[in-house]
Amino acid sequence: MPTQFTSQDKQFMQMALDLAVRGQFTTTPNPNVGCILVKNGEVIGQGYHHKAGEPHAEVMALRDAEQRGNDVQGATAYVTLEPCSHFGRTPPCALGLINAKVGKVIASMTDPNPQVAGCGLKMLSEAGIESAVGLLQEKAEAINKGFLKRMRTGLPFVRLKLAMSLDGRTAMASGESKWITGTEARADVQAERAKASAILSTSATVLADDPGLNIRWQQLPEKVRSVYPENSVRQPVRVILDRQHKVPFSAQIFQIPSPVWLVSNSARNEKFTKNLPHLTEILLPENMQNPLLSLMRELGQRQIDTLWVEAGATFAGALIEADLIDELILYIAPKLLGSDARGLCHLPHLTRLVDAPQWKLHSMTQIGQDVKLVYSREYKETE
Amino acid sequence: MPTQFTSQDKQFMQMALDLAVRGQFTTTPNPNVGCILVKNGEVIGQGYHHKAGEPHAEVMALRDAEQRGNDVQGATAYVTLEPCSHFGRTPPCALGLINAKVGKVIASMTDPNPQVAGCGLKMLSEAGIESAVGLLQEKAEAINKGFLKRMRTGLPFVRLKLAMSLDGRTAMASGESKWITGTEARADVQAERAKASAILSTSATVLADDPGLNIRWQQLPEKVRSVYPENSVRQPVRVILDRQHKVPFSAQIFQIPSPVWLVSNSARNEKFTKNLPHLTEILLPENMQNPLLSLMRELGQRQIDTLWVEAGATFAGALIEADLIDELILYIAPKLLGSDARGLCHLPHLTRLVDAPQWKLHSMTQIGQDVKLVYSREYKETE
Repeated sequence: MPTQFTSQDKQFMQMALDLAVRGQFTTTPNPNVGCILVKNGEVIGQGYHHKAGEPHAEVMALRDAEQRGNDVQGATAYVTLEPCSHFGRTPPCALGLINAKVGKVIASMTDPNPQVAGCGLKMLSEAGIESAVGLLQEKAEAINKGFLKRMRTGLPFVRLKLAMSLDGRTAMASGESKWITGTEARADVQAERAKASAILSTSATVLADDPGLNIRWQQLPEKVRSVYPENSVRQPVRVILDRQHKVPFSAQIFQIPSPVWLVSNSARNEKFTKNLPHLTEILLPENMQNPLLSLMRELGQRQIDTLWVEAGATFAGALIEADLIDELILYIAPKLLGSDARGLCHLPHLTRLVDAPQWKLHSMTQIGQDVKLVYSREYKETE
Repeated sequence: MPTQFTSQDKQFMQMALDLAVRGQFTTTPNPNVGCILVKNGEVIGQGYHHKAGEPHAEVMALRDAEQRGNDVQGATAYVTLEPCSHFGRTPPCALGLINAKVGKVIASMTDPNPQVAGCGLKMLSEAGIESAVGLLQEKAEAINKGFLKRMRTGLPFVRLKLAMSLDGRTAMASGESKWITGTEARADVQAERAKASAILSTSATVLADDPGLNIRWQQLPEKVRSVYPENSVRQPVRVILDRQHKVPFSAQIFQIPSPVWLVSNSARNEKFTKNLPHLTEILLPENMQNPLLSLMRELGQRQIDTLWVEAGATFAGALIEADLIDELILYIAPKLLGSDARGLCHLPHLTRLVDAPQWKLHSMTQIGQDVKLVYSREYKETE
């Protein structure tokens, strides 16, 4: 029989989830986790995981209770993810809860890694602590899409950003395209970048636009800046596909002191790399069957949870044809550019309507004068 | 000093507006109007205009009060449009209210025809009846966009329907396009057609798809069918632009016994027309500077309030370039068709981003798996 949760349980877990997402810009490659300690219906301690290498949510909550002079013995701990059971950079959280003599642990979901799922709960139960799992699990899944996908499949969660006119165009025939969408939509893109473990683009985009692909704190939306101070900004890794070594030494991406990973099949000469301390070369074997999938595997191994893609119609189309996109993020500007203008994504192998990739609407929002539509990939039963 | 309205006034006027829209499928070329009669804070009679040729809202409300055995003397009448002051197919409503000895009349807005605006209210005031105007005027404007535009400019309110994939495509390169959007979106199109005075299309569309362009009651959304019985369905006029007399005698549009207006520059031969009792030919002079504007003027003179356009990318583009579209209605299906697929609208004269027509988001709705975006034309200050 599944565990019955009370509405009070739900309330406390929702608080833990709200705490968890405070780490959304900084915990990668770790998940967002929140923890609430409750005794006699009162919150006596709370915490969340801030940043990889720093204490986990449970430890933060126990410390908070201690600082407030509260005795956690017999308390119920609400955690958004099963407490860890392994010794990593920090001792296992399950052990921390056992030592603190909490009375009960409720987790939203088990550990996503199938090989250790349930181990934390088992450790608790062996210590005589009651536990339950599954409270608000869907919400807990939603706040850690990247981490969960990587743990389950080895691949990052890939989000493709597309900005277009009402008629699906990205630029005039001449290439003129600056600022099709408005200031607010561009600020939203900054916020989306800030949540990503890495940003993926191509040498074609670097050569065409010379973007920095970094977080510019001043351009984040006010509501993000208010919770994410400038001095704690994490710059996502910039991953650039550059098979033919076209990215020049002078590119903007190298002017910003944060990691750039250049992906190709062969090493650059030392003259190029020796003065670029933030550069890492990722070399993939040549003539692979599915080079984009191999790239994703490589990025997964390098602990990239969520990948935010900003690129042109050709690369966008290639990722879609390779079926590697988990979410489409579409910004629609209130303009018409006409059929001579440039298209959104090239899908040269698509000729029949029945083969057109199908998506599922996830959310729609007005952002300034633009519309933001988020779609997730819809798999047909026949696929 | 502007009239102060109470929150009770607003409530009653909102009731009158809700009544008015019940006529939205049937009153054209007349406006939607509702009327509520209130005495001692109680509604003692109510009515709305059902259909051109039938009694106006005020008369319906007076009759309702009488049937309910209520004395309207001294009552307040809430009407969504200034009572008419002219003898048309029915006597002026202002006179009806005077004869009934109502105590006060509150109207949402004055008559849209600038030459008679205020005459109804003046007639009331000359009879010693207090009146006020301007209560919920924006809402009253919104329910009669077509009628109001025609009265003010002589032109219909033109709504362009576009259905596309996420990347702004209407069909595969091969032309394959059947049912890009889902059942619910197509039902919504039926409802939009049903509200229009006329549907405009082209011979190209007739030749390509052979559509009926009529209302199919069974395909209307359930919420429309429940308020709009099958036996009262009004078929909008089908207007087909057919400069070169390409529409064949066998076309679907002629199989449905309701008006078709064929627009060209020269009369068809009698052999074509004599067995088509529902056909009207509209002949426009050749070599006009702005033939599409002339067509709109002609349709305005023929009392078309709202025009619903369903056509291909070329005609859609021509209407947009001629700046004749008041509203874009965009249905977006959750598919990607790729850059080889067919575009949404041809704007061959547009080459600079700064010249791209600008729109303003009016509403966004999820309809089944599709998204419906409604935009109104945004005029820049420099235009």
